[in-house]
Amino acid sequence: MNLPTQATIIEVGPRDGLQNLATFVPTLTKIDFIKQLKKAGIKEVELTSFVSPKWVPQMADAPIIIEECLDEETRNFVLVPNRKGIDRLLGTACKNAAVFVGVSDSFNKKNINKTTEESLQELEPIIRDLKEKNFFVRACISTSFYCPYEGKVEVADVLVLCQRFASFGVDELSVADTIGMANPKESLELFSALKKALPNIMITAHFHNTRGMALANIFAALQAGIDRFDTSAGGLGGCPFAPGASGNVATEDVVYMLEQMGISTGINLNRITKALENLLPHLDKPYESQYYKWVKGTGPLSQV
Amino acid sequence: MNLPTQATIIEVGPRDGLQNLATFVPTLTKIDFIKQLKKAGIKEVELTSFVSPKWVPQMADAPIIIEECLDEETRNFVLVPNRKGIDRLLGTACKNAAVFVGVSDSFNKKNINKTTEESLQELEPIIRDLKEKNFFVRACISTSFYCPYEGKVEVADVLVLCQRFASFGVDELSVADTIGMANPKESLELFSALKKALPNIMITAHFHNTRGMALANIFAALQAGIDRFDTSAGGLGGCPFAPGASGNVATEDVVYMLEQMGISTGINLNRITKALENLLPHLDKPYESQYYKWVKGTGPLSQV
Repeated sequence: MNLPTQATIIEVGPRDGLQNLATFVPTLTKIDFIKQLKKAGIKEVELTSFVSPKWVPQMADAPIIIEECLDEETRNFVLVPNRKGIDRLLGTACKNAAVFVGVSDSFNKKNINKTTEESLQELEPIIRDLKEKNFFVRACISTSFYCPYEGKVEVADVLVLCQRFASFGVDELSVADTIGMANPKESLELFSALKKALPNIMITAHFHNTRGMALANIFAALQAGIDRFDTSAGGLGGCPFAPGASGNVATEDVVYMLEQMGISTGINLNRITKALENLLPHLDKPYESQYYKWVKGTGPLSQV
Repeated sequence: MNLPTQATIIEVGPRDGLQNLATFVPTLTKIDFIKQLKKAGIKEVELTSFVSPKWVPQMADAPIIIEECLDEETRNFVLVPNRKGIDRLLGTACKNAAVFVGVSDSFNKKNINKTTEESLQELEPIIRDLKEKNFFVRACISTSFYCPYEGKVEVADVLVLCQRFASFGVDELSVADTIGMANPKESLELFSALKKALPNIMITAHFHNTRGMALANIFAALQAGIDRFDTSAGGLGGCPFAPGASGNVATEDVVYMLEQMGISTGINLNRITKALENLLPHLDKPYESQYYKWVKGTGPLSQV
């Protein structure tokens, strides 16, 4: 079995992880959390998003977060859903944009009130514009395995959508199991097909641990040659438009597994744990990560 | 990738899962739990153990459990640590014995106050005797990946120990990651080596989810040709002599993953869930299984 020797973690906690929390996390706490994650070795991070504060009040402080957290050493992403978000992003110094669309029409209709095709037609000129302005563009492909409304999503449909995005010039495709229902056989199948169809584009795997299979799916994706993983410190997250989506797979669980297998991530787990300890008092629920529970001894038995 | 089309679940909840609970589970509740698990399709189960009630009071009702739960349709195991336990077992109608030893000397010394070699020397005549009496003998090999006192355990040491047991005539080797520290690369490596070295013996994988890697390890073991898995309904369990050992991997999490991959288990998940609902009021902690949390909606978001 060939596994990569290095892997990149794209930390999505500050955006994907925090966005659904009922309690507003103070802006200075978010900034401190992001800075601590970078000190732990995170080199790519979703900082925040330019979405309507009416819909996602947690992200209302996006301008301050961006101003305080941009740096040269990290690929700092801002998620933007549409032209309005892009226009706000263009007013900042950030040069890394994340756009998103689901494979399934029903999901997109419920999420952004557009069909997949309508969404693509809106995103194409935006992406081409961003690329002309030398942006790094990441396209997040939701419901790439299962849709909460339509069920199983076909590999062929994901391939077609990803190829469309590739033709627009995106730099990265983050392919997501939004509701945490994929199994490792499906992970291996889809990511093998994507690597074969799109050998010249960065492909990132994004798993949720709703049914406990996230690490198994990552092990399968590694076997397909994937070496980039979206993760969320503390396993925070979910999706407001995807009922049943549990937390994103926890950064610390993924880093621990990768490092134990000799796959280098450059991330210091003690520092991640420290960042999580500092954030915890501001959250309304405990962390779900096995590593954190084990290290903190809050699992059934404490650390060896 | 070749995966098996069928897999066997060995349910260890009634013994391994319950043995460490501080609160005594009423005997009739245990019996009902076991019967419900069988109705759900469990065909092999660790019923109870003949250990000292002073050390493991939860198992003090072993004789009644055995009397009430033996049947023709199921391989009903009783765990026996030594000659004294065997003598008690021979007084019952049960014909399936499970013995155990750790690979690591330090673990065995702390657990049963014998070195690995001393333990083997005690077990050899016991196993040969049981085989003469037409017993099915299962040998549980603890600390096959990591020891809480000695660290990493070498594949060669596991192979040597397993070959010794095979030479005694055991029918099955249950090879355990007792402290839940193995990673999928190690799972694939060890189980591939065992399948190659011992092609004619049943080999079962036994994982704990302490660091969240149990399902990934099972996916790796499947790739090594393993089709038997020890699991514990509700993810109950741990090991009183293995600090840091979290619950056994949950039956429902494993069955869900296997069935989703098209690997048939013959187990009805709704019935497993029902059995767990009925047991829950008698437990002093909630279940840790992702499947159960998802189905019951006690996770971050409820069932799709």
